[in-house]
Amino acid sequence: MRAAVLRDGHMAYRDDVPEPVPGPGQVLVAVRACGICGSDLHFASHGAEMLALTDRMAGDGAFGGLAVDLNRDVFMGHEFAAEVVEAGPDTDTYGPGTPVTSIPVLLSAKGAEPILSSNRTVGGYAERMLLSAPLLLPIPNGLDVKHAALTEPMAVGLHAVNKSNIAAGEAALVLGCGPIGIAIVAALRARGIETIVAVDFSPARRELARIMGAHETLDPQQGSPFDTTKQAVVFEAVGVPGIIDDVLLRARPGTRLIVAGVCMQADTVHPFFAIAKEINVQFVLAYTPDEFAASLHAIAEGDIDVTPVITGEVDLDGVGAAFDDLTDPDRHCKILVTP
Amino acid sequence: MRAAVLRDGHMAYRDDVPEPVPGPGQVLVAVRACGICGSDLHFASHGAEMLALTDRMAGDGAFGGLAVDLNRDVFMGHEFAAEVVEAGPDTDTYGPGTPVTSIPVLLSAKGAEPILSSNRTVGGYAERMLLSAPLLLPIPNGLDVKHAALTEPMAVGLHAVNKSNIAAGEAALVLGCGPIGIAIVAALRARGIETIVAVDFSPARRELARIMGAHETLDPQQGSPFDTTKQAVVFEAVGVPGIIDDVLLRARPGTRLIVAGVCMQADTVHPFFAIAKEINVQFVLAYTPDEFAASLHAIAEGDIDVTPVITGEVDLDGVGAAFDDLTDPDRHCKILVTP
Repeated sequence: MRAAVLRDGHMAYRDDVPEPVPGPGQVLVAVRACGICGSDLHFASHGAEMLALTDRMAGDGAFGGLAVDLNRDVFMGHEFAAEVVEAGPDTDTYGPGTPVTSIPVLLSAKGAEPILSSNRTVGGYAERMLLSAPLLLPIPNGLDVKHAALTEPMAVGLHAVNKSNIAAGEAALVLGCGPIGIAIVAALRARGIETIVAVDFSPARRELARIMGAHETLDPQQGSPFDTTKQAVVFEAVGVPGIIDDVLLRARPGTRLIVAGVCMQADTVHPFFAIAKEINVQFVLAYTPDEFAASLHAIAEGDIDVTPVITGEVDLDGVGAAFDDLTDPDRHCKILVTP
Repeated sequence: MRAAVLRDGHMAYRDDVPEPVPGPGQVLVAVRACGICGSDLHFASHGAEMLALTDRMAGDGAFGGLAVDLNRDVFMGHEFAAEVVEAGPDTDTYGPGTPVTSIPVLLSAKGAEPILSSNRTVGGYAERMLLSAPLLLPIPNGLDVKHAALTEPMAVGLHAVNKSNIAAGEAALVLGCGPIGIAIVAALRARGIETIVAVDFSPARRELARIMGAHETLDPQQGSPFDTTKQAVVFEAVGVPGIIDDVLLRARPGTRLIVAGVCMQADTVHPFFAIAKEINVQFVLAYTPDEFAASLHAIAEGDIDVTPVITGEVDLDGVGAAFDDLTDPDRHCKILVTP
């Protein structure tokens, strides 16, 4: 079958990937849409560093490592919507053709494996892939599968907002209006937060943030967002070195900072800034299964309209070019792969 | 009058400091005991960097700056117990000879000024100083003023524990058993936490931590404290570059890290470690007035016995040597200046 794989730091097109065979409890599905995630771009560029950092943590026993060999093809794609093709042996599931999505985890006799980056387990950048019957969520009748593919990134925003414990009456300042920042804006708006200020250098991204629910947008070249907003819960969705220290320096005393951007490099901070202002930093990642289901529900019910987020669509042979296109923040937010 | 002042990076003895004159709302007190704080040692060595960092924050308007000229003598000493000498004009206060303490803040017509490091306002390393009548707390009858001088550092520990929201049944891991770590151990014990693990390279400090309430102590040269303890709320009371990243690397997923150590230098961290484990970092500083009063009460009621913490006593002409002695962690925890 056809798939796009990471090879030597770039996405390569293949038409010779062996068909996945579902085991007990697994379901073969046909991918209908899979979003390209910033973390996949990051893994393509900085996979070796990511694996080294993960291994350092695993070496301390606190965290499981990822066994990925970058010298072999790597399957990726974890923001998918699909249709059931067939169930594995002794597996009850939805009938063929049922549109489904799932958290990106594959269960097997060996345990649970993330569907994220793997030499072995095919992800959503492929014609077909395996999912786990107990984790399947049917896509509610009538919801476009392309919109359902946004369940995963929108769940990331919902999770960040939930972890922030932001309350009615509090303001939110969202730094960075890429897909994660946009998902945070949407989740804040759906929660009824009445002051959402979104910040990005890109005019296109600021406009998208406005459409998705920001009450105000700011270009940081026009002045510090901390001068123009009152005390706010700060969501950092930039993920580059220096941004955390900049928040610690500029934010008001008692600020809660939610770090949702994924900075993979070593970063320099001044703890004294944070100490003097008693800042709380909550680092966040991913979502719970309940949040994933809530995200699908919010999209299906129309609480969050993801239409403006989808800015492009490519087939499997266009994934490589799409990875390149996504580096321009003015052109794209989310590109879907539709095999 | 006599005082010890910071001059050219060292503590100098002076016998020609002008007598402070209390204004309205102020009270002249005779210092009976003043603890030497690690932050004073730090300011003596790194005052210029501290002021530069504070100015950077002040420049962004989020934080008030400290106006200290290091080319002139600097008064310090903020862990004091004293006796009332006389009140300023139109000021009601306790009678002469009443033992008192106070949060280190001096109120005047110009506002509130911290009693921390100043070219102008005399601190506790002096025979006499000014305090604010509304902030005075009488030292309960019978409590040794030397013990009352520990109110301030013990309040720092209480505040860190309060900000941690540690609950019954949770374990605590305290990294660093200097005065702040010891105060945290004591506050954890007073709160009834049943698993307190204290970590320090120094055998003397580990022994003091045990006496003050740690259930277990560890030498980090003998192995990672994160291998030997279960999930724990981590209190970082070391305050040197590298310690925060080490916790982020080794701590278990979901860890709450309370940063009570005051690292003044730029520090390198890997946000990815914290993101992957969704760590929460609460930076803390000082205490509230209520916590200060609670700390005095805990010492006076015998809930916390500070006797073992006091490892030395000097007069004003011995402050310089005491600053040097305090750099050896095996010799001292808290030295009191008793003018």
